Amino acid sequence: MTSFDRIVPVLDRLAIEVPSWAYGNSGTRFKVFATPGTPRTPQEKIADAAKVHELTGLAPTVALHIPWDKVDDYAALRSFAQDHGVDLGTINSNTFQDDVYKLGSLTHRDPAVRRRAIDHHLECIEIMGRTGSRDLKIWLADGTNYPGQGDIRARQDWLHESLTEIYAHLGDEQRMVLEYKFFEPAFYHTDVPDWGTSYAHVNALGDKAFVCLDTGHHAPGTNIEFIVAQLLRLGKLGSFDFNSRFYADDDLIVGAADPFQLFRILAEVARGGGLDEGSPVALMLDQCHNIEDKIPGQIRSVLNVQETVAKVLLLDREALTAAQDAGDVLAAHQVVMDAFWTDVRPLLAAYREAKGLPADPMTAYAASGYQQRIAAERVGGTQASWGA
Amino acid sequence: MTSFDRIVPVLDRLAIEVPSWAYGNSGTRFKVFATPGTPRTPQEKIADAAKVHELTGLAPTVALHIPWDKVDDYAALRSFAQDHGVDLGTINSNTFQDDVYKLGSLTHRDPAVRRRAIDHHLECIEIMGRTGSRDLKIWLADGTNYPGQGDIRARQDWLHESLTEIYAHLGDEQRMVLEYKFFEPAFYHTDVPDWGTSYAHVNALGDKAFVCLDTGHHAPGTNIEFIVAQLLRLGKLGSFDFNSRFYADDDLIVGAADPFQLFRILAEVARGGGLDEGSPVALMLDQCHNIEDKIPGQIRSVLNVQETVAKVLLLDREALTAAQDAGDVLAAHQVVMDAFWTDVRPLLAAYREAKGLPADPMTAYAASGYQQRIAAERVGGTQASWGA
Amino acid sequence: MTSFDRIVPVLDRLAIEVPSWAYGNSGTRFKVFATPGTPRTPQEKIADAAKVHELTGLAPTVALHIPWDKVDDYAALRSFAQDHGVDLGTINSNTFQDDVYKLGSLTHRDPAVRRRAIDHHLECIEIMGRTGSRDLKIWLADGTNYPGQGDIRARQDWLHESLTEIYAHLGDEQRMVLEYKFFEPAFYHTDVPDWGTSYAHVNALGDKAFVCLDTGHHAPGTNIEFIVAQLLRLGKLGSFDFNSRFYADDDLIVGAADPFQLFRILAEVARGGGLDEGSPVALMLDQCHNIEDKIPGQIRSVLNVQETVAKVLLLDREALTAAQDAGDVLAAHQVVMDAFWTDVRPLLAAYREAKGLPADPMTAYAASGYQQRIAAERVGGTQASWGA
Amino acid sequence: MTSFDRIVPVLDRLAIEVPSWAYGNSGTRFKVFATPGTPRTPQEKIADAAKVHELTGLAPTVALHIPWDKVDDYAALRSFAQDHGVDLGTINSNTFQDDVYKLGSLTHRDPAVRRRAIDHHLECIEIMGRTGSRDLKIWLADGTNYPGQGDIRARQDWLHESLTEIYAHLGDEQRMVLEYKFFEPAFYHTDVPDWGTSYAHVNALGDKAFVCLDTGHHAPGTNIEFIVAQLLRLGKLGSFDFNSRFYADDDLIVGAADPFQLFRILAEVARGGGLDEGSPVALMLDQCHNIEDKIPGQIRSVLNVQETVAKVLLLDREALTAAQDAGDVLAAHQVVMDAFWTDVRPLLAAYREAKGLPADPMTAYAASGYQQRIAAERVGGTQASWGA
Repeated sequence: MTSFDRIVPVLDRLAIEVPSWAYGNSGTRFKVFATPGTPRTPQEKIADAAKVHELTGLAPTVALHIPWDKVDDYAALRSFAQDHGVDLGTINSNTFQDDVYKLGSLTHRDPAVRRRAIDHHLECIEIMGRTGSRDLKIWLADGTNYPGQGDIRARQDWLHESLTEIYAHLGDEQRMVLEYKFFEPAFYHTDVPDWGTSYAHVNALGDKAFVCLDTGHHAPGTNIEFIVAQLLRLGKLGSFDFNSRFYADDDLIVGAADPFQLFRILAEVARGGGLDEGSPVALMLDQCHNIEDKIPGQIRSVLNVQETVAKVLLLDREALTAAQDAGDVLAAHQVVMDAFWTDVRPLLAAYREAKGLPADPMTAYAASGYQQRIAAERVGGTQASWGA
Repeated sequence: MTSFDRIVPVLDRLAIEVPSWAYGNSGTRFKVFATPGTPRTPQEKIADAAKVHELTGLAPTVALHIPWDKVDDYAALRSFAQDHGVDLGTINSNTFQDDVYKLGSLTHRDPAVRRRAIDHHLECIEIMGRTGSRDLKIWLADGTNYPGQGDIRARQDWLHESLTEIYAHLGDEQRMVLEYKFFEPAFYHTDVPDWGTSYAHVNALGDKAFVCLDTGHHAPGTNIEFIVAQLLRLGKLGSFDFNSRFYADDDLIVGAADPFQLFRILAEVARGGGLDEGSPVALMLDQCHNIEDKIPGQIRSVLNVQETVAKVLLLDREALTAAQDAGDVLAAHQVVMDAFWTDVRPLLAAYREAKGLPADPMTAYAASGYQQRIAAERVGGTQASWGA
Repeated sequence: MTSFDRIVPVLDRLAIEVPSWAYGNSGTRFKVFATPGTPRTPQEKIADAAKVHELTGLAPTVALHIPWDKVDDYAALRSFAQDHGVDLGTINSNTFQDDVYKLGSLTHRDPAVRRRAIDHHLECIEIMGRTGSRDLKIWLADGTNYPGQGDIRARQDWLHESLTEIYAHLGDEQRMVLEYKFFEPAFYHTDVPDWGTSYAHVNALGDKAFVCLDTGHHAPGTNIEFIVAQLLRLGKLGSFDFNSRFYADDDLIVGAADPFQLFRILAEVARGGGLDEGSPVALMLDQCHNIEDKIPGQIRSVLNVQETVAKVLLLDREALTAAQDAGDVLAAHQVVMDAFWTDVRPLLAAYREAKGLPADPMTAYAASGYQQRIAAERVGGTQASWGA
Repeated sequence: MTSFDRIVPVLDRLAIEVPSWAYGNSGTRFKVFATPGTPRTPQEKIADAAKVHELTGLAPTVALHIPWDKVDDYAALRSFAQDHGVDLGTINSNTFQDDVYKLGSLTHRDPAVRRRAIDHHLECIEIMGRTGSRDLKIWLADGTNYPGQGDIRARQDWLHESLTEIYAHLGDEQRMVLEYKFFEPAFYHTDVPDWGTSYAHVNALGDKAFVCLDTGHHAPGTNIEFIVAQLLRLGKLGSFDFNSRFYADDDLIVGAADPFQLFRILAEVARGGGLDEGSPVALMLDQCHNIEDKIPGQIRSVLNVQETVAKVLLLDREALTAAQDAGDVLAAHQVVMDAFWTDVRPLLAAYREAKGLPADPMTAYAASGYQQRIAAERVGGTQASWGA
């Protein structure tokens, strides 16, 4: 049994959720560029996501964003997804695009606004029942732009109250994951800016509340793998939003900006049991394909995660432990780098072929004619984007 | 003669250009909030800008953005402005919102795209002739999101070629100011990311080319006042875009995030002759009032600059020099802090009244009924925003 | 009763602990500059600290660093301090200068090294009994320089074990404060890098364990006042190490780099009850006077804190609340800035004189001849520094 | 001819200078750990450096630091080096460890101090004549810790004067390389903080002056490969100081913190002709082996550079150009990543063996017994460190 054979079971259960909104247009405050073939409906987004799964075997579920993916009949949407070979996943709430939320949502000073934001989450939970989703993901844009604008301290208390009410409505098999973000769209203070804040809140809520770690949402220089190790130790790492960054929340393809960081993050996930059977850690993408094609952008992304997981699994932990025991700094570092530099691409190509998947999903997609087909078919209507 | 009397002549000639787009809506990639009374035309933007000048005496010119402020008759627009008590100022080009510029403009690989971007700038120069503007400001969104996407080196050469052609069309009394920006909207590399790059280009162009320093466009921790001192020393500081930031290019009200930094920046401007009669340094605002009211946001901003300039001018340079000569670190620092902590607000209120201006322009604006009037009158049409 | 009169009781109980090591030499890895008059013994350090208190009334206690301040008779040291008008304060442990700690102390892989580090802390607790100190402050240099060097996850578990044993030895009136630091001296990972980690540990320990917040120990752009608000809300803010920074852990004079940040931090301290009678929040300096004179450097520092506290206390909270209630972003921000710009220096000079203190402690120190006297008297011996 | 064969000529001339001080002890301001076998003399440092070259064939020259490596007879030192198979390289000046330089050296307010600092550099040039060195490297610790402490603007003028005098003494075949550093040991402003400043100065000096780029000396998030491309374009990239960093100037092993960044940097070096025959770009290490063994730390480092250069040379530039021409963002990025992920280790092992070098220099060093021998022999005396 080669070392690659030994990691196959983990690769076999590797699943990376893709978000419906990744298939719509995205951009910066300066410009959102449109591309031919962009979906106009939740169904078209799901069809695109299903294509990613068909070619990679890595993306069996699709996350929805409410209200962007609102439909009249969620059971029908679920059937649609299943007919396309995927299932519906995490429900993401949205309290940052209504005018009423200009100064906050779950943390707003005005109880009426908080009420409305809470109700939106209760509606999301209801949808989860119909879509069969396990996770409610809450990312809050709440924060302030100027010192004095809000009462930082009181907002934490309001947040706790709001989350407590939402949490109380979760079903037995449902979870809440609370995402943190360093800054943006608020530019002075953010109400859930770091893992410590998210942890303090989910810890106060109970066993069904977890932290969601978005890899792009940290201060410059933050050691993210440390946070991964810590949250796994505390039993509170619920999910990842994968992407990569050079500067801020750049939302680039996961692994594109710093592949070694992705490796270190996934190494701590593995070290802490996050890739074990039954692990509570859900892996998801959350990126913006501002200038690159969306479907191949998603394919590239899940492949990057798969390749990195393979490297991590090939890490010689015995040799690593031995070097650590010996206090041999260079030797221990070398063991890590040996795994990182292992070229797993041919191994994974063979693995894919053995599973009836294309050896190179990127080439297979380009050859599939899918892009040309959707560009030709999806004419008229409004292309999906943030907010639609 | 009090020390305040001595600084009056400098205060008298203090002029801070305001941008037309500050009066339109702005926001983040997540949401642009609208407000009642937002201008729908260049004329309405100019009227709002004129109100700022009327109440503060600080903002005699308005910068335009092409194509956002395109009109058929620029001479008429200029008359309109002058009738309102202000003049037209810097012309800002825009090569970041056409689909053709998705992968670059003046640095684009394709000569046809570069041609189009150059032609846009030549059109801007033509407009400058009609508006009586001295400065053409170039900020480029050009850059790449992924390593490999572009040829970083070749793009510099293309940029040089493009700028050379544009520069050749400048009139004798016209200038080009080249702005740099650390990142965004490009997330891997930016073609003019730092002062060194802008300086290298304007230095190669000639005497009519200068650097534009936007206070929000730097890496974390950058000592901006050092750059100010250096560029003044090199004779290449052409203009400022004022705003403030906690994280990235937050575009908050100038002086709001770090008032001491603004003080240090303006102290180096003064030290280097940038407030002297005939100085080449143009002061301008470039901010985003995402959540606060726009007109009072601009009033607050020019007041912040005025207050800080007053503090800087009150700095006891003799005492500072003496402490520096003595190598007394704490004493020298104290001289600086004494100026910073001086409460110039009452002095400036009296100064304003002596000039027939309201002592407190913020209160005067609130009392003027202007906001209510424009909210009532400006109904229908499309509110101005980035891109309109 | 003026608004200043109203804040006098808080000013009267304002106490800022000074560290013994601030009076010794400090520097960078490149060079430690020596200065005449630098103390050679714990007693001389205490005498210098007492001078700061004599002139300001602000620094009634002196923190010690073990082993730097080891003496045979702590009761005698305490009497010495009290004879000089100050008392002994926080005991700081040190596990970063013995060769055995090269790869860690309380987190070291080898139980024998952890044993030794734990024993050092038990010795510190013993010393606390003799000095009458309430707080044991733990700052750990533990971390790694290269990925793979250590087992990040296991080290957290070892840390928990070590702290648990130390905590068990605390007396009823004693506390442990656990400091966090973003990086340095470890350059890849640090075992207690952020407030979340410190909070998770002290939370697991019990009611006598708190977080110590060093204002210089954060990632670039971190909103420190948010952490203050959060930790106060969670009941776990135990103490501050004050200093300031432009880049990393620069250890400059508190308030020197960003006075507005210090204001915002202290505003949240006040908002959260941290300046109330009986507050658990201890204020301390922890700075490096690398190039400036140490005693006036400390005087300047406690004055900066006092001035900023006065500004914070003068903040018109009713007006602030009203503006927040109205959702008036600019008005709320203005209330904060009005407090910040208030020139409290004359008020505090009068306050000091009313208490029999010099109006200007900096001038008083310069005029006292103390510096000249210690420079003349303290000849020979080894000047105190880190490590001595 | 395989693609590897094609790159052999470049690999054959790859030379990475090692610094004498890398073999001495280094550390942080908190602690410098000593290790058995550390050199006590320049000769012992050179012997260690020669061992690195013997095992790797990559490090033919050794940089010296004056005064750390001062000897009476430099001709003899050169012969000593040549007898050991290496040559002497860059001379590094030092103006940061004398008390007189506390407030600056080449930028000091006092002409007498500037005189002394200039004279030190003239002495360095004299030494260069005797050691046969081409390059004088100037890194200045000059800067200030507090706003007001120094006159930022005047210091630039003094710097220019000082450099002009030093430059005038360079021989025809000699060069000056001016290093920049973002911060540390100065914590408010640094006199040569960025590439723009270094470029402005060397540009004003003349053809024999170049910029030295230390990979650790940048603000967070800085795109270093862009600077490389720009300086090569401007003809002013003289040399590299290689190391790596997570936070500040961590001085870790090159390629350890972000191997993809090193790849991108070297890709731009190659793109700009920096690896061509006769290129002006000198490659050097400048690291701190605070906790790891020094000699294997240096071996690891030159191997990291060699491996990365091999990857860069294997980059398929035709395919890259084609993808860029097509505007295919993902395809272009993929070409870059394909080179990065190529496992060059077996190819390089074979290459080394073909040249009579050990296939694995790390293992060869461990097996050589050299470390044990120097640990046994180098007993007594003072171990070299910064400052000795």
